[in-house]
Amino acid sequence: MSILIVVPDRDVKPLRESIELLLPEVPVWVFPDLPQPQAVQLAILWKHPPGLLKRLNNLRLISSLGAGVEHILNDPDLPAGIPVVRMVDENITISMRNYVLMAILNIQKQFRFYQANQLAGVWQSPKLVNLPLRIGMLGIGALGGPIAQFLAAMGFEVWGYSQSQKSIEGVRCLSAEEVPLSAFASQVNVMVCLLPNTPETKNILNRGLFQAMPAGSYLINVARGAQLVEEDLLWALAEGLLQEAWLDVFREEPLPKNHAFWNHPKIVITPHIASVTNQVTAAGVIAENYRRSQVGESLLFEVDRAKAY
Amino acid sequence: MSILIVVPDRDVKPLRESIELLLPEVPVWVFPDLPQPQAVQLAILWKHPPGLLKRLNNLRLISSLGAGVEHILNDPDLPAGIPVVRMVDENITISMRNYVLMAILNIQKQFRFYQANQLAGVWQSPKLVNLPLRIGMLGIGALGGPIAQFLAAMGFEVWGYSQSQKSIEGVRCLSAEEVPLSAFASQVNVMVCLLPNTPETKNILNRGLFQAMPAGSYLINVARGAQLVEEDLLWALAEGLLQEAWLDVFREEPLPKNHAFWNHPKIVITPHIASVTNQVTAAGVIAENYRRSQVGESLLFEVDRAKAY
Repeated sequence: MSILIVVPDRDVKPLRESIELLLPEVPVWVFPDLPQPQAVQLAILWKHPPGLLKRLNNLRLISSLGAGVEHILNDPDLPAGIPVVRMVDENITISMRNYVLMAILNIQKQFRFYQANQLAGVWQSPKLVNLPLRIGMLGIGALGGPIAQFLAAMGFEVWGYSQSQKSIEGVRCLSAEEVPLSAFASQVNVMVCLLPNTPETKNILNRGLFQAMPAGSYLINVARGAQLVEEDLLWALAEGLLQEAWLDVFREEPLPKNHAFWNHPKIVITPHIASVTNQVTAAGVIAENYRRSQVGESLLFEVDRAKAY
Repeated sequence: MSILIVVPDRDVKPLRESIELLLPEVPVWVFPDLPQPQAVQLAILWKHPPGLLKRLNNLRLISSLGAGVEHILNDPDLPAGIPVVRMVDENITISMRNYVLMAILNIQKQFRFYQANQLAGVWQSPKLVNLPLRIGMLGIGALGGPIAQFLAAMGFEVWGYSQSQKSIEGVRCLSAEEVPLSAFASQVNVMVCLLPNTPETKNILNRGLFQAMPAGSYLINVARGAQLVEEDLLWALAEGLLQEAWLDVFREEPLPKNHAFWNHPKIVITPHIASVTNQVTAAGVIAENYRRSQVGESLLFEVDRAKAY
């Protein structure tokens, strides 16, 4: 029995060492170091190479290193019947919460307006010092739920939308069972996308959604680039349906050099840094799931393959 | 008996109407409309003209419209024995909290680094996605105290410094009675100034303070411009003692056109908008203090003239 870490192009020393501390009896290998493929019972994956899963014949558990699992579920070699778990960790939630909050506060306080004024040497107070925001959270599960609740506790008006009906203190929760997405969109002027990446959520940030929102609204996408129809965003910004978009994720990453987003005055770009897994705390979740899988207990954050999250 | 509002160059209609609703029996005048100076019992002041107080012979109470009271205490015509109250209001605190938090999150997430990269078309993740911050709050009273507590509850490491010893949940509170300011400064790498403007706090943000902080620290000044020695800030930024300064207040406002701060790459300027009194909620505090002064009850947020806050 052993554990294999497969995270190309990243230093995973903290992850390996933390797992070794927690599970001293289990060998931990870092791909491409793979002495005995058939000994691997737990694989920790982030953008693993194609074909690898075929070689791991005795897998009992696959853990994503991040909140997303599409890189695992989309692998044609994924064996049926092996449980897949995603990473849910307080540090991921806090880091994501802080990014979303940064974007919201920059919007509320009109920070980019002052930055432009500073460049021009202009001292000017807007009529409204704090913009009135109605925040819509698309996705209020393990990650979006606590963030929505936190924003509501800060005094923001927060609406949440999910597949099935949820209940979160201070948040007006609507579900797809109840109302169409456009009805939700019409109630908010800041849309935060925290949806999992599934066939159903692909291209969900599109022309129809932007048309449903009040003119001059804001978009914050911190989920996946595939959820945004890029030409629809450019159109909505040109039409004034949207005032500004904050994007941390893109269909192609790194964002290609000649992409129209780079120098768009109403688009804010960050290089997929909203939230990064803390390897030390993630190791705790992974070791716990390893232990549970060994003794047959129910796993933490197991993915429903039908739902894809 | 009547109430006089003196707030030059600002539309105070919401304030007047809200007070009239709460105190329907009391005439409310807006300066320069002043039919009977001797009838004024309560004056609500924000940067009132010199000489005005001499004409108000029957004043019983002076209320500032903001958190600061130096514009009142510095008036040589201020009669002795008349109580002065400052404005403490949940909306002021929330607005200030959100500004301070915006600055802190922009620093933690290195937002300006990404903005510069976007202008240059560069996709680059820093080694540390979230900077480790140790926040020092200078001033942990009615305004700074709840903000420090909130930041600590968010998971930030927060230190607070005040004249007399305080105790705030989650915050490491030091006092001037105990340790010199430089000892406090050496413990933090983000200094937030929320001190009242008094003779003691004038020029408190100076070379000695910046030297005591770890190299590459951050300054956020949302209190008063007179507290910052401007040439010392320019020196500390040039030396690398400070990495960046966020300034909402200045010795002269508006900041003069030719001021060295405007195009400094390590200075962020906003035009004194961190917090603005909400006239509707402020009216509630003012009306309550008017009622208390009429019946001789102790006032809310009365200023100790010796301390000047």
